[in-house]
Amino acid sequence: MKINDVFSMFHQDLLMVEHWMKKALSSDVRLIGEVSSHIIGGGGKRLRPLLLLAVSAACGKEIDGRYPLAAVIEFIHTASLLHDDVIDQATTRRGKVAANNIWGNEASVLVGDYLYARSFDLMTRYGNKRVITCLAKATTAMAEGEVFQLMKVGDLNITEEDYLKIIEGKTAVLISAACEIGAIISGADDRTIASFARYGHRVGLAFQMIDDALDYMAEEGTLGKTIGKDLKEGKITLPLIHALGLGHERDRQKVREILQHSIKEEIDFRWIKDFIDRHKGISYTLDRAHSLSEEGKASLKDLPPSPALKALHTLADYVVFRQS
Amino acid sequence: MKINDVFSMFHQDLLMVEHWMKKALSSDVRLIGEVSSHIIGGGGKRLRPLLLLAVSAACGKEIDGRYPLAAVIEFIHTASLLHDDVIDQATTRRGKVAANNIWGNEASVLVGDYLYARSFDLMTRYGNKRVITCLAKATTAMAEGEVFQLMKVGDLNITEEDYLKIIEGKTAVLISAACEIGAIISGADDRTIASFARYGHRVGLAFQMIDDALDYMAEEGTLGKTIGKDLKEGKITLPLIHALGLGHERDRQKVREILQHSIKEEIDFRWIKDFIDRHKGISYTLDRAHSLSEEGKASLKDLPPSPALKALHTLADYVVFRQS
Repeated sequence: MKINDVFSMFHQDLLMVEHWMKKALSSDVRLIGEVSSHIIGGGGKRLRPLLLLAVSAACGKEIDGRYPLAAVIEFIHTASLLHDDVIDQATTRRGKVAANNIWGNEASVLVGDYLYARSFDLMTRYGNKRVITCLAKATTAMAEGEVFQLMKVGDLNITEEDYLKIIEGKTAVLISAACEIGAIISGADDRTIASFARYGHRVGLAFQMIDDALDYMAEEGTLGKTIGKDLKEGKITLPLIHALGLGHERDRQKVREILQHSIKEEIDFRWIKDFIDRHKGISYTLDRAHSLSEEGKASLKDLPPSPALKALHTLADYVVFRQS
Repeated sequence: MKINDVFSMFHQDLLMVEHWMKKALSSDVRLIGEVSSHIIGGGGKRLRPLLLLAVSAACGKEIDGRYPLAAVIEFIHTASLLHDDVIDQATTRRGKVAANNIWGNEASVLVGDYLYARSFDLMTRYGNKRVITCLAKATTAMAEGEVFQLMKVGDLNITEEDYLKIIEGKTAVLISAACEIGAIISGADDRTIASFARYGHRVGLAFQMIDDALDYMAEEGTLGKTIGKDLKEGKITLPLIHALGLGHERDRQKVREILQHSIKEEIDFRWIKDFIDRHKGISYTLDRAHSLSEEGKASLKDLPPSPALKALHTLADYVVFRQS
């Protein structure tokens, strides 16, 4: 099964999620609709809703509540993007001008808050206590991860453990929650729910590692990704953490100097990229992501075979082998 | 009964709320504790928790869950202050340096998100479905109100109806929710719950009107209030809306010019203040607030007399007659 087959398989379901998102964003307040449809209509992959839908299908019982709950997951994700873009003073997002650059930071902060509030409202209506508890924990962990990342900006002493804690909060917990909720609403037993949550957690970590590797690899302009964005923001990710662990003190000193420059030049980025390459930081990161994705798949080994289960395997591979 | 008697009456309860707030903010992530205790410890009046506690007492059944839920209300309020300060580029809050000026906008946005997430987590644990639904609606309305306010910045055509919609979202819905929840958790019947919600709504509107009047009246430095703050931010509030409705076209033109200045001078502020005074904008606002507060008290008329009910009357008066 190829990734396009997965998207085809859930095409109708994903349209229902779009419908729910659109419906939930109809507000009397015009600016809310404008900002949120700019970012929501901005061509995200809908990976998180897709995972919720696929898990639900793999559990063999698909209830209608999966649509609004999949919309909730995408809203929470989108709200965090809006707030991230304010924090990172981003200029682009998903290949389009970032919302904060069109409507100002004010609108991004407030429309992000609105999306959180709407998520909360929707999940209260369509989720049971267990779903709500899962999302409450996930959003708390997300916020903690984001603040922790902020504390570690420019900190050369960041460890791989710190890095894992950051990407767990910023990415893995929400992807894990999407999978967990797909299983909960389909009436899966506790053990199965935990397997899907673990699958989502590992796939989520792998996803972010690949994102961080691509930030040193992607061609400028590919799907709106800008190369070297993390370094510009002082975010030290796994490829560089790995190299810093192996490099000499004089290299660490050079990295420190570069990080202190308020504007990072092309030549600085090149130096960092060479330094990472010398210590195989990219392939180390890709290997780690690959193992995590395999762990994710392995945690589904006791489930009965189904097309949806195949789709989840394909998704775990896609996350690691995507080029952008 | 005087306002200080009300605070004394609920002193022990309010200490419990402080205890819950402190407990809920213990995070491994140091910056979360720093920013949130700066603003939470920053001398707020705890009016919202107090209202929840007083309503609960007036209903005659005080459950332990009132403490974490009162903390939730204060957290949501605090999160909205953190985000507002980013939006307004505030320099002070409650007489102290605003968090965004110490730790940067990033920290204020993210710690605000953390407080929302923790609120959500706490209410899931201590609130029933009805409490959660009430808060979901309130936070959605708050975000809508904030975005609507942003859209109306500098707009001279703002009507009194627009203004009511804004202050309903930014202030009244949360105060109303605090009262409603106090009644829900104490097992009040639907009619009683609705009476308390209405009381909170009217008191909340009155509270914000007084705040907006004080912004043209308060002495510089009083309890951290800076005079003319709203005008500086382009926010047109009831005193000015009233004057604009009665003033000549040439006065409207002058107001328009002043609002277009990126920096408002003392002389501009004085002119606006005189313009408001000529059309009795302050006393109109105070009268409106006074009527709303009376409406709030009237909605409690069928309740059995109790010290807590007296406290709620005192609070409704305090909101209108406070000097800062």
